[in-house]
Amino acid sequence: MISKEEISNAFQVLQDKICQGLELLDAKSKFVEDQWTRPEGGGGKSRVIQNGNVFEKGGVNFSAVFGKAPVFLQKELQNSESKFFATGVSIVIHPQSPYVPIIHMNVRYFEMDETKWFGGGIDLTPVYFFEDDVRFFHRHLKSICDKFNKSYYPEFKSWADDYFFIRHRNETRGAGGIFFDHLKPSAEVTADRLFEFVIATGEAFIPVYSEIVNRNRDKSFGEREKAWQLLRRGRYAEFNLVYDRGTKFGLETDGRTESILMSLPPLASWTYNYKPLPGSEEEKTQQMLGKGLDWIS
Amino acid sequence: MISKEEISNAFQVLQDKICQGLELLDAKSKFVEDQWTRPEGGGGKSRVIQNGNVFEKGGVNFSAVFGKAPVFLQKELQNSESKFFATGVSIVIHPQSPYVPIIHMNVRYFEMDETKWFGGGIDLTPVYFFEDDVRFFHRHLKSICDKFNKSYYPEFKSWADDYFFIRHRNETRGAGGIFFDHLKPSAEVTADRLFEFVIATGEAFIPVYSEIVNRNRDKSFGEREKAWQLLRRGRYAEFNLVYDRGTKFGLETDGRTESILMSLPPLASWTYNYKPLPGSEEEKTQQMLGKGLDWIS
Repeated sequence: MISKEEISNAFQVLQDKICQGLELLDAKSKFVEDQWTRPEGGGGKSRVIQNGNVFEKGGVNFSAVFGKAPVFLQKELQNSESKFFATGVSIVIHPQSPYVPIIHMNVRYFEMDETKWFGGGIDLTPVYFFEDDVRFFHRHLKSICDKFNKSYYPEFKSWADDYFFIRHRNETRGAGGIFFDHLKPSAEVTADRLFEFVIATGEAFIPVYSEIVNRNRDKSFGEREKAWQLLRRGRYAEFNLVYDRGTKFGLETDGRTESILMSLPPLASWTYNYKPLPGSEEEKTQQMLGKGLDWIS
Repeated sequence: MISKEEISNAFQVLQDKICQGLELLDAKSKFVEDQWTRPEGGGGKSRVIQNGNVFEKGGVNFSAVFGKAPVFLQKELQNSESKFFATGVSIVIHPQSPYVPIIHMNVRYFEMDETKWFGGGIDLTPVYFFEDDVRFFHRHLKSICDKFNKSYYPEFKSWADDYFFIRHRNETRGAGGIFFDHLKPSAEVTADRLFEFVIATGEAFIPVYSEIVNRNRDKSFGEREKAWQLLRRGRYAEFNLVYDRGTKFGLETDGRTESILMSLPPLASWTYNYKPLPGSEEEKTQQMLGKGLDWIS
């Protein structure tokens, strides 16, 4: 069975590949790396790209941390002496252009005493909804899921709708994608097979995002589109600070704040009681921020 | 003994006075009011001023809500049928100029079945620390507290240091002020006297903030100061979304989202791993963001 060292090594290789892919795509800015250690155990490599042709701010984090289990992991906690190990790659990209969607991807592996599980997901947040792009995105994710288990895509798509949901706005963060957690080896599926699925999800990132970036990167935009982007980024910040479990986990385990909050937008705005103009592209996007939309059939 | 209707009426009068005072100070923009009702009981009046001479975005909220107690109020909850009533005025002002501090004030009254208590506070968040202003602010607050109880200022100042603290940054939100909660009538103090103290806190808002605004409103600033203001506003948003109990209470009791999140800045930024230049004014401000500073002696 695959070891936590092998998983953590594979995640570092994935981080390398993704950073190379994004640099190629941007063709101007390069990632800058900070290595850090966590006093209670473990550490990571945070890589940030800023002020690029395509990317205004993007982070690709690797971390592997371990130690005494934090109390808020109570569901998994076996006793007060429980030990945890967590490793993962986490990405959030804020593009310059309002026509290029924000994207997030995460793959992770946890151990709590004798319990081991994988989690992850990838989701797209278009500032302006282009249905063809969203369809392309979901179909690509479905094709990966289907190679492993036909039930994965419908289950994980619906999980993403529920997870990436801004309850106080009654809207999804964006166009969703897939989200999965607590995937444990069982009689039906080995740890190695789950690991392969997680790596396949991670390796989908560059091809699928490159296609969407290249479709939209040269579209021209003005102040109106930029203002709407800043508002949508405000919602993104709300989700990450109020609901995101990865952010909470990081902040509550005294992770490296700058790495955890790399996901926050370079610039964001909040306008009191903003309502998009009836019939506008902004209103159309707003209306797509719901659960349960079918992007396959 | 003062009734909840009298308290709620007095809070509405306070809201009126404060809005008039801020309009005078701004001398350009006027507050716009939205009245709203909460399906589960109660409602409020939200007032917003935007794009003024002095104020870029400011909110002065009144609300009085009631109904079945939300489960997260467990500490106070007497049984699953508990009823609550909450009324208050809540203010956050984001000025245009980086030299004019952000300010927050809140006064509130709660009833949970037979238990009644007051809470509130006022705190200042300078983007650039001017020690004379901070001293003036704290001395004014102390003079109000001292009229009621000599132990109030030291106790409530220290409470504000602890409350307005961004744990994951290991820094306070700003220069603090006073914060108090669960002030209950007792053998030592009547509800009427606590109410007088809360109203005195609310009535301090206009004189104390007007003085600080007028000291700083005409100072000229450039892009560097504006950039630092946007970063500090990002921290403000972090505090409000991650830690603020009023925000959590509002979002979890399905309050009106636009009124609750009126506290968020009009524009904010996040720069990865920003460090102020050694010896700069920005660094000096950063170094003042700690607990336990003495602004009186």
